[in-house]
Amino acid sequence: MVFKVTVNNAWRATRTLWLLVLVSLSVCICVCRASSPQEDSAMENIDTEKKAEESHRQDSADLLIFIMLLTLTILTIWLFKHRRFRFLHETGLAMIYGLLVGVVLRYGIHVPRDISNVTMSCHVNASPATLLINVSGKFYEYTLKGEINANAVGDVQDNEMLRKVTFDPEVFFNILLPPIIFHAGYSLKRRHFFLNMGSILAYAFLGTVVSCFVIGLLMYGCVVLMKQVGQLGGDFFFTDCLFFGAIVSATDPVTVLAIFNELQVDVDLYALLFGESVLNDAVALVLSSSIVAYQPEGNNSHTFEVMAMLNSFGVFLGVFSGSFALGVATGVVTALVTKFTKLRDFQLLETALFFLMSWSTFLLAEACGSTGVVAVLFCGITQAHYTYNNLSPESQDRTKQLFELLNFLAENFIFSYMGLTLFTFQSHVFNPMFIVGAFLAVFLGRAANIYPLSFLLNLGRRNKIRSNFQHMMMFAGLRGAMTFALSIRDTATYARQMMFSTTLLVVFFTVWICGGGTTQMLSCQHIRVGVDSDQDNSMSVVEGSERRSTKQESAWLFRIWYNFDHNYLKPILTHSGPPLTATLPPCCGPLARFLTSPQAYENECQLKDDDSDLILNDGDISLTYGDITVSTDATGAHTSGGPGFAGAASFDDLDRELAYGDHELVMRGTRLVLPMDDSEPPFTDPHNRLRM
Amino acid sequence: MVFKVTVNNAWRATRTLWLLVLVSLSVCICVCRASSPQEDSAMENIDTEKKAEESHRQDSADLLIFIMLLTLTILTIWLFKHRRFRFLHETGLAMIYGLLVGVVLRYGIHVPRDISNVTMSCHVNASPATLLINVSGKFYEYTLKGEINANAVGDVQDNEMLRKVTFDPEVFFNILLPPIIFHAGYSLKRRHFFLNMGSILAYAFLGTVVSCFVIGLLMYGCVVLMKQVGQLGGDFFFTDCLFFGAIVSATDPVTVLAIFNELQVDVDLYALLFGESVLNDAVALVLSSSIVAYQPEGNNSHTFEVMAMLNSFGVFLGVFSGSFALGVATGVVTALVTKFTKLRDFQLLETALFFLMSWSTFLLAEACGSTGVVAVLFCGITQAHYTYNNLSPESQDRTKQLFELLNFLAENFIFSYMGLTLFTFQSHVFNPMFIVGAFLAVFLGRAANIYPLSFLLNLGRRNKIRSNFQHMMMFAGLRGAMTFALSIRDTATYARQMMFSTTLLVVFFTVWICGGGTTQMLSCQHIRVGVDSDQDNSMSVVEGSERRSTKQESAWLFRIWYNFDHNYLKPILTHSGPPLTATLPPCCGPLARFLTSPQAYENECQLKDDDSDLILNDGDISLTYGDITVSTDATGAHTSGGPGFAGAASFDDLDRELAYGDHELVMRGTRLVLPMDDSEPPFTDPHNRLRM
Repeated sequence: MVFKVTVNNAWRATRTLWLLVLVSLSVCICVCRASSPQEDSAMENIDTEKKAEESHRQDSADLLIFIMLLTLTILTIWLFKHRRFRFLHETGLAMIYGLLVGVVLRYGIHVPRDISNVTMSCHVNASPATLLINVSGKFYEYTLKGEINANAVGDVQDNEMLRKVTFDPEVFFNILLPPIIFHAGYSLKRRHFFLNMGSILAYAFLGTVVSCFVIGLLMYGCVVLMKQVGQLGGDFFFTDCLFFGAIVSATDPVTVLAIFNELQVDVDLYALLFGESVLNDAVALVLSSSIVAYQPEGNNSHTFEVMAMLNSFGVFLGVFSGSFALGVATGVVTALVTKFTKLRDFQLLETALFFLMSWSTFLLAEACGSTGVVAVLFCGITQAHYTYNNLSPESQDRTKQLFELLNFLAENFIFSYMGLTLFTFQSHVFNPMFIVGAFLAVFLGRAANIYPLSFLLNLGRRNKIRSNFQHMMMFAGLRGAMTFALSIRDTATYARQMMFSTTLLVVFFTVWICGGGTTQMLSCQHIRVGVDSDQDNSMSVVEGSERRSTKQESAWLFRIWYNFDHNYLKPILTHSGPPLTATLPPCCGPLARFLTSPQAYENECQLKDDDSDLILNDGDISLTYGDITVSTDATGAHTSGGPGFAGAASFDDLDRELAYGDHELVMRGTRLVLPMDDSEPPFTDPHNRLRM
Repeated sequence: MVFKVTVNNAWRATRTLWLLVLVSLSVCICVCRASSPQEDSAMENIDTEKKAEESHRQDSADLLIFIMLLTLTILTIWLFKHRRFRFLHETGLAMIYGLLVGVVLRYGIHVPRDISNVTMSCHVNASPATLLINVSGKFYEYTLKGEINANAVGDVQDNEMLRKVTFDPEVFFNILLPPIIFHAGYSLKRRHFFLNMGSILAYAFLGTVVSCFVIGLLMYGCVVLMKQVGQLGGDFFFTDCLFFGAIVSATDPVTVLAIFNELQVDVDLYALLFGESVLNDAVALVLSSSIVAYQPEGNNSHTFEVMAMLNSFGVFLGVFSGSFALGVATGVVTALVTKFTKLRDFQLLETALFFLMSWSTFLLAEACGSTGVVAVLFCGITQAHYTYNNLSPESQDRTKQLFELLNFLAENFIFSYMGLTLFTFQSHVFNPMFIVGAFLAVFLGRAANIYPLSFLLNLGRRNKIRSNFQHMMMFAGLRGAMTFALSIRDTATYARQMMFSTTLLVVFFTVWICGGGTTQMLSCQHIRVGVDSDQDNSMSVVEGSERRSTKQESAWLFRIWYNFDHNYLKPILTHSGPPLTATLPPCCGPLARFLTSPQAYENECQLKDDDSDLILNDGDISLTYGDITVSTDATGAHTSGGPGFAGAASFDDLDRELAYGDHELVMRGTRLVLPMDDSEPPFTDPHNRLRM
């Protein structure tokens, strides 16, 4: 009976889907119809208002195509999730639907040449941003849209229809990417991110730069070869190759991560991949803009020059650190505002403020000439780490859900646009040699990032990155939204057009093949699935020696950061942590008293530590280990943590501290204190003192 | 101790506020700085890319001003709410901040004449949408922005800075108004809306048209007078006057409603005001566009012509019914999709689908030449009435919160822009006579709407609209977002500019004075506050004769609608209601079986009726009346509801039915059935049969 109902429902769902397909097709027809009056009216007296209205109609219809595409994607992906198909992620599906609509728009609909476009050859020697045209006494205002390739002028007039569905590339950077990147920062799994911080930073910075140069050099070789064979139809300089290297170095394993999440793959692997992909988007973006900034002074703008290179390097550092500072700054301001006002009583105001402040980061960075997307990333991380704790529970849910939704919509929009643009973009340059070379270079570049770096990192890590993890990371080098947005940003020259077409293919291939093969790859590499992140920790306790030191490869970096954060930043920016009056030197007394929230004093006495998410979930631990309390304590882990221990904490000690911290918390009923934290306030409860 | 902490916090909050003020001021300075490089670079070789970047920076800075304004508004309004100041609503505050920034931009910052604007007098006899300009071999693409008044050309070049912070008026109709209007529809209190449907429709349709014509005629008198005195500097036709009448007839008592909500004012008054304001926005919008469509065929386009007037009337009916149909259609499609798929298992997908479908209404309507904003309104109502019931509880919250946030942001953005534009708009025409005339006309127009209509309605209503309610409705005729958006849409002619300036003043006055005086007006008119909407119903039961017939003024309309909705629409579109196999005639058997959800059969036997929100909340009733069960039944209300009762249900019977419906529900443990509903399925439980 139950089975019958389910089948019935599924069948109904499929029918509803087809209904939707029909609706969206009728929309396409509607688009054709909407564009036909334009033709008629062009013959008549030209009326500005009517034309503006017509153009608005057309825009609405174009946007409607995308909305319908997304709706279809949502319904299909629901069907897939319902039936547990894992081989195709929603982004891959969005691309397929985009491709289909692209084919229809390209070959199915022919819009006759729009004669209302006029090419004028005026006697002006400038291209101002605003142009006033005097047409028989009436003034019309025009705004500059951009330069057009001379040989594309014919196309412009021919394919008005296709150009209509083409968005300004800046839409991606100003509207679609910010929510995606912010969401990535806001949803970063902070505990494992900070625990693996060293490796993640190495992969993201060093790895991306290595990958960029390896791909750039390989592509330069390829281009030289193509020149020899006579396969190259235009200029292609070394900086172009490096630029290509930069843009395809931004990985975006959203498909893989979704599967990881669903199958509960090892949290370290997840943290490494996610952390790397979040940060290397930022690195690749800044890297590509500093490569564009490379301009030698001489006439030949493509020679090597030390000064120009140093300048580029300076641009990289300046833009990156500027964006970082702006992002963190607005995050901190938001945290302070939410801490010192009682906005939490009005959730709508709180959520609105959070949204506006996060958005203002982007605008502020752009207005200052920094990179908004990078600023937004660091703002997201700061908001998650500090502001989130000050929000009311409702606002925590609201903000999470809001950015989750925005991320979902923006991501699928970009991927469906990617599919569409394969057919609607009008200056594609598909060069087989370049494409083969690019695929090879992308593969080798990823390998040159992962394997050598993993080897070096393993020298320092106690918890080695095993070879199957390395293979998985190599395999998960998908390219996605950022790569696409960077490559479509400028398609003016021959080289850029070739890059764009090739990038599109790289994205398609990696998303479909690598994304679709994730489950196979996981089982082939014998990577554990179904690992609960807290379970994982608990196992290290049970198994004792072998897995005890799992999470501490970057413990020294982590420890310094954690101490600073716990003793100073958290108390300043949130209601949690020890009172500043206890952690700051006595000379800063008034300031400390001013900044410390009343809750902080209460925290001293009772169990209320928002840091726990950084270490372990108290609830889980107390549940799992309620019975082995004594045996754990019997190992004597904490007897080694005496006062002299502060400076020279060994990995083992911190490891135990991390593994047992919350456990101890449960027993003592007081907040977690790291061993270094010996500047205890005089009025803590005696239980806490006993330990020292 | 507690008091001390509160004071301390408030002081801190104020400090934080000032910090924010400083930040936002620094942003303003940043704007000036950002615009200075433009000047320098203008001297150099003009580089398109650089200029585009500069323009983007400037745009970001401009948008940042608004974000900062909204942030400030949020913080200040929090302070007001915290201290229970009710004299200023957030929208009024947003206007004040907008005014302040407008003054700073206008008088505080002087940007030198931008010489990069070039006026060309080309030999073209057309103003195409896209213009290709050939500047020494390079092609630049320009897009048409609009026509500019000949005598404003000088201004355009002078005040680039002020023009930069001026948005394209279409932004309001395409981005800001849709979420506001959708939210209004989605949050309509349906029970009281439907109960007062007749009066609301009368006020919204008849009242708005009356108000439009009264204001139009009065303004025409005023204009004629001005011509006599020589105060008029340009053309001002009767159609212009009517247009003015239409745009200022859209009321937007958001301030008043917020206070009503907070003070829990009588639900009928709330429903009347809210329902009227939601619908008259749509009416005014369509009315104004059909007045614009009035174009007699002769040379003089401002004479009276029957055909043209009929044409305008046809436009009104066509656009309104088209938008209505589109809005309801997409709502119905969404309801069907959410009913027949199990999307509710994946809340993110569900919310995304809901959002996309609601948005597509707007685009579809615009693409078809209808009015998107009106379509969105009816889509919102449909979604709230049907789709909402199919959503999972999480998605219900998510969608509500999402649109609440969007509404909040859009509304405050519009109001702060209103404040700003008083100083930054460059073609203001303030004419004292016209302004005085307009205020008088607006007052009289509102009076001509409310009082005669209330008199007529009271003839038919059993529950009279008392005179204090009428005065309150008169007083609550605030003008807001829709009036502003309509008046800024076209400011090309002298008449429109004068209208715009006057409208701005009308909005300011009504929002500040009427909005601020709401609480005084409430107490002055002795209108009950602190009325719980369910309490109100229960009182009608307790008080017996006097208040029993409170809600039934439009009961006949309501009853027909309710029966149709409950028996056919709800079962088709949602999981609730009786199975269609029972309500549809036997010939439609297969269709009925196909459309009926499995839950509907279960509903038959158990208490699970989503309609209850239309009548009463079961929970509240069973709580309030648990003890007076017998006495209520003893009135014998239901003995009069025999089978022969179906066609001739008197107001009294329906009234009792409405008042006791859910009470009966509690006792019988079965679903609520209206007396007319005698087509009971054969397999209902015997308890239900007993009643008939």
